[in-house]
Amino acid sequence: MLRVAIAGASGYTGFELIRLLSTHPRVVLSTVTSRTSEGQRLDEVYPAFRGHCHLTFHGTDPDRLAEDAELVFTALPHRAAMGLVPELLQRGLKVVDLSADFRFRDAALYEMWYQEHTAPHLLSEAVYGLPELYRDAIRTARLVGNPGCYPTSIILAVAPLLAQDLIVPETILADSKSAVSGAGRGLSLTTHFCEVNDGLKAYKIGGEHRHTPEIEQELSRLAGRPLNVTFTPHLVPMSRGILSTVYAELKAGTPPESVDAAFASFYRNARFVRLCGSKALPSTLQVRGSNYCDLGWKVDIRTGRVIVVSAIDNLTRGASGQAVCNMNLMAGFEEDEGLREAPWQP
Amino acid sequence: MLRVAIAGASGYTGFELIRLLSTHPRVVLSTVTSRTSEGQRLDEVYPAFRGHCHLTFHGTDPDRLAEDAELVFTALPHRAAMGLVPELLQRGLKVVDLSADFRFRDAALYEMWYQEHTAPHLLSEAVYGLPELYRDAIRTARLVGNPGCYPTSIILAVAPLLAQDLIVPETILADSKSAVSGAGRGLSLTTHFCEVNDGLKAYKIGGEHRHTPEIEQELSRLAGRPLNVTFTPHLVPMSRGILSTVYAELKAGTPPESVDAAFASFYRNARFVRLCGSKALPSTLQVRGSNYCDLGWKVDIRTGRVIVVSAIDNLTRGASGQAVCNMNLMAGFEEDEGLREAPWQP
Amino acid sequence: MLRVAIAGASGYTGFELIRLLSTHPRVVLSTVTSRTSEGQRLDEVYPAFRGHCHLTFHGTDPDRLAEDAELVFTALPHRAAMGLVPELLQRGLKVVDLSADFRFRDAALYEMWYQEHTAPHLLSEAVYGLPELYRDAIRTARLVGNPGCYPTSIILAVAPLLAQDLIVPETILADSKSAVSGAGRGLSLTTHFCEVNDGLKAYKIGGEHRHTPEIEQELSRLAGRPLNVTFTPHLVPMSRGILSTVYAELKAGTPPESVDAAFASFYRNARFVRLCGSKALPSTLQVRGSNYCDLGWKVDIRTGRVIVVSAIDNLTRGASGQAVCNMNLMAGFEEDEGLREAPWQP
Amino acid sequence: MLRVAIAGASGYTGFELIRLLSTHPRVVLSTVTSRTSEGQRLDEVYPAFRGHCHLTFHGTDPDRLAEDAELVFTALPHRAAMGLVPELLQRGLKVVDLSADFRFRDAALYEMWYQEHTAPHLLSEAVYGLPELYRDAIRTARLVGNPGCYPTSIILAVAPLLAQDLIVPETILADSKSAVSGAGRGLSLTTHFCEVNDGLKAYKIGGEHRHTPEIEQELSRLAGRPLNVTFTPHLVPMSRGILSTVYAELKAGTPPESVDAAFASFYRNARFVRLCGSKALPSTLQVRGSNYCDLGWKVDIRTGRVIVVSAIDNLTRGASGQAVCNMNLMAGFEEDEGLREAPWQP
Repeated sequence: MLRVAIAGASGYTGFELIRLLSTHPRVVLSTVTSRTSEGQRLDEVYPAFRGHCHLTFHGTDPDRLAEDAELVFTALPHRAAMGLVPELLQRGLKVVDLSADFRFRDAALYEMWYQEHTAPHLLSEAVYGLPELYRDAIRTARLVGNPGCYPTSIILAVAPLLAQDLIVPETILADSKSAVSGAGRGLSLTTHFCEVNDGLKAYKIGGEHRHTPEIEQELSRLAGRPLNVTFTPHLVPMSRGILSTVYAELKAGTPPESVDAAFASFYRNARFVRLCGSKALPSTLQVRGSNYCDLGWKVDIRTGRVIVVSAIDNLTRGASGQAVCNMNLMAGFEEDEGLREAPWQP
Repeated sequence: MLRVAIAGASGYTGFELIRLLSTHPRVVLSTVTSRTSEGQRLDEVYPAFRGHCHLTFHGTDPDRLAEDAELVFTALPHRAAMGLVPELLQRGLKVVDLSADFRFRDAALYEMWYQEHTAPHLLSEAVYGLPELYRDAIRTARLVGNPGCYPTSIILAVAPLLAQDLIVPETILADSKSAVSGAGRGLSLTTHFCEVNDGLKAYKIGGEHRHTPEIEQELSRLAGRPLNVTFTPHLVPMSRGILSTVYAELKAGTPPESVDAAFASFYRNARFVRLCGSKALPSTLQVRGSNYCDLGWKVDIRTGRVIVVSAIDNLTRGASGQAVCNMNLMAGFEEDEGLREAPWQP
Repeated sequence: MLRVAIAGASGYTGFELIRLLSTHPRVVLSTVTSRTSEGQRLDEVYPAFRGHCHLTFHGTDPDRLAEDAELVFTALPHRAAMGLVPELLQRGLKVVDLSADFRFRDAALYEMWYQEHTAPHLLSEAVYGLPELYRDAIRTARLVGNPGCYPTSIILAVAPLLAQDLIVPETILADSKSAVSGAGRGLSLTTHFCEVNDGLKAYKIGGEHRHTPEIEQELSRLAGRPLNVTFTPHLVPMSRGILSTVYAELKAGTPPESVDAAFASFYRNARFVRLCGSKALPSTLQVRGSNYCDLGWKVDIRTGRVIVVSAIDNLTRGASGQAVCNMNLMAGFEEDEGLREAPWQP
Repeated sequence: MLRVAIAGASGYTGFELIRLLSTHPRVVLSTVTSRTSEGQRLDEVYPAFRGHCHLTFHGTDPDRLAEDAELVFTALPHRAAMGLVPELLQRGLKVVDLSADFRFRDAALYEMWYQEHTAPHLLSEAVYGLPELYRDAIRTARLVGNPGCYPTSIILAVAPLLAQDLIVPETILADSKSAVSGAGRGLSLTTHFCEVNDGLKAYKIGGEHRHTPEIEQELSRLAGRPLNVTFTPHLVPMSRGILSTVYAELKAGTPPESVDAAFASFYRNARFVRLCGSKALPSTLQVRGSNYCDLGWKVDIRTGRVIVVSAIDNLTRGASGQAVCNMNLMAGFEEDEGLREAPWQP
């Protein structure tokens, strides 16, 4: 059994990690830490865990983590993560970091959108934790930068089209709609029930959202040249799920069937990608609680564009489920170990 | 007092018409008809109206309508509408038709997306009922084709940019998100509570939705040449509202300020359009129950695109409120008569 | 035109007052005050009001209120209200107070559940603002204590049965379910979207909720002797509405028809009470946005109990709509002036 | 591995059974049947199961079921269930029936509320499948009548109080609030999204709901004498969950502590009952997706009543999870085998 710990476990991604790890057949969750909930029992903070998980939140001490665990999930805010991660690596631990701190290859890009990077020497070895793109590198990594929720949904939607050179990269445009849990458990008028319920809005449009450079880093790599994308996030009155609708111009002369073929080929071994094609478009409901990314698409002959719809659970595939999948790869387990439960319906 | 009637009043747009007309200060709602609810009291079908409106549903008889009313709202399914409307006009009535039957100038276009048109001779005189574009023509019209909900939200979002020639028309792309009431009151698994709640999906993507030609007709006219748009509708777990996020490439050399100026100038006299600019993006919640269309926008310098966000209530501005506004213009009333209530919050 | 002001207008009841007063035909809303939003434009705090209401929040100054208004709605937290109200009365203003501070006849009772009362001399003249019970007294009042949301829904449900002596008063039991807006606009984990959505809970059960003594005061008066009630509040994932299900034992030998007769007689002149009887039980949806209280009931022959279901909108009939109704009575207007809009559906 | 089948698997309880059984470690789900979906692939009806479960719906043939399975879950409508169950028993199968057909000991009682019973000879051997009351009998049963959702939540709330003789049985009153999935997947205006969203109502009040005799059967047995209860169901805008608030008069002289002791003692070995006491009242959210029943309570000294709040997931503990638990007992597995996943949060 692999002993694991979670640093910063009192938010929604922390809860989702605990949920998945507490029934994972090859793992023992030995420690959970939290600054805000230190000293409290886990089941006081989340009564759902009563009788199910008996841990108490500790403060975040690297020595203690090294004693209790072989692999640590850091679910801390960015900046805090890059303070702790080097300490953990130094003590011989493996790390899956859920913040943005180790998602970028280029410290300058990180610093343009976030802040000064305090551990830039680790960026070259950190692996971007999207298994469909980096499965082999993840297997041997010490440090995985777990992808953002929006980037996961968008990169998986267009990777096959860029890989097969079917679209004009500069025309990529992603319109994403997220559930409210993506905004976390911190209090804000934006996530106050009556300000969200029965309403819908866009936010941080026009290149303001910090997931933009992360999306661009991976799509540029796939395209083989630097590119900018238009990315528009929206807030939807539901608890879980992201639906991204991604648009791009097909290269002249591309037959629609080649789009189908590109998806089938790119994802032929992808355990967690389900191809819905044009007939049965995906819904966030059908992936809720699971690590699946469901993809549907259609070529609009009239405008020469391809439209790809991608559905994930933002807390599972968009954060903690993907982190567990990365741990599975790093530990030599089956990729879907502990992630085989069916989606939640209804 | 203007005597008005509603033909086909038992669905959600019918209810919304009754709601607005029953307190309109210059109107008497004399008759409501319904095939499915004939003989039932209105407040049996909609208990909300108990003690508030005392009508009973009749069958739809043109002679009776001509006796009871001077203007009729036809809220029938398309095809049924074009059967009735000529009968009403012949009897000297004015008509605001909420179906798709009189929105198109070109019968061939209608027939390509819908079915054979049985009253094509009326298309040349029918006015497309979007007051911001056709206010003067509506004032003198006998027959107004009330716009679709999606087209209203999309056309208002890009009209100023096309009118000022700031964007490349062929790059227009509309990603729209609709509340469930847009699907009507008819039963379907698609609108069953547990199939909608906490979920999100796209439908009829890639040029399949029948609102596409309506959007293209009006945008082509504004652009001065035929164009196709990519239009993607989505279904969101809320009762009312449409948010459309519309994208287009700015023409080379267009300064971002000219976008602001275009909106300000185009809508300087628009009673029901509220310009939110880039700072305070609109939300469907802030227009709920009202006839407002709220518009926000941003130029994405990195990609050269302008992004416009448009929020309406699909039942009010997207259907019945706009129909009442059209009636006001046809009857010589103030444009906002009976439409001055504040939006519903929270 | 009556000039009115709102002190403490930045919460949900404040918004609802503004919504109703801004289109009230016999009123000018001249001033809104707020401690937290002082200096901000109303439409910055509530974008829904853009182009609709042009006021700016001031601080709460009694002299200024006396200059600008003849009647003031105090929508302040309890304790703050009883600080301001005497100042306003002294300046010749009439007051409708939406806090708990002037709902009790007995200062000792207030002090047992709240805190020291700083203006107990006003309690004898303050009228409990439930028009169905105190219409005449409200007409001549200087100061009205506007009822709480739960008490409104519960008292209206059982008043006819107590008035006609049909039930055993000691057996009254009220199980109430409230929308989230009842908890206000202040931030709390309790009203965080993801903690409320798709969930349901009870709170402050067993005689802990402060609306208990208010309910008991009025029911005791109707019963002619002091009584205690069991009152259980619940939180439901919706924005507006309270449904109270109230139970009591019928006195031996009471025929079920006498229950129908009691309701019909007690509410024969009640503009805002709609009797649904046993066939069509009320729903909060059918009163949303209106001042109606819808009542349904059934005698359970098997257990000898009567069950009354009462539906109101907690912000309208449970707070601001009722306050406007009280103002109408105090000013000699029609009771339903400004309150004639139909409920919001769907 | 135990081979199991589900007859009537296309509704929500069927889906929930498939979800739980498809990852159950000691079970093979070999067959699913459905009249309405015969011939369709399971993942066409429920896209959530794509790549997860590869069955196709068959028609319901007892011989085939006997070939494919050792135990059958019958999730058919009542009446259909009692047609099939004798056929299955005759072929040597064990049965967990989720309909009402085998919940009653007395055919006459069933017939009073439902219809003629066509297999009354099986009622004496059928065991009521509430493990906390009948664990031992379930272990050796051939046929288990799986309890209704409301009865599960209510019986568990009061059983300890009746068992310890702490309350007056005739005063029991249950006010229950159910999620919409309780109404099933069949289409109806009652479960149409816009008729449910943001609304709340009671239905079948005053002894009309068919779960009433089932509740009374079990509570009478615990009380040692026949009794009637008042039971009021409500419909809440959420997908999963039942919260029941149950009231009863304490017998004179009962100290409040004895209530705590009764719960602790009665449920000391109950794997799936979690006692929350008076401090942290249960919420349906904290049991969602799990087989837990969470119980909180309070004695209201002022009125002499005890109030018990009970939270379950209506599809899991209220139907399919409890059915799996019963299967575990019948097969000699651990009671919580396949039911150890944590509740779904948020």
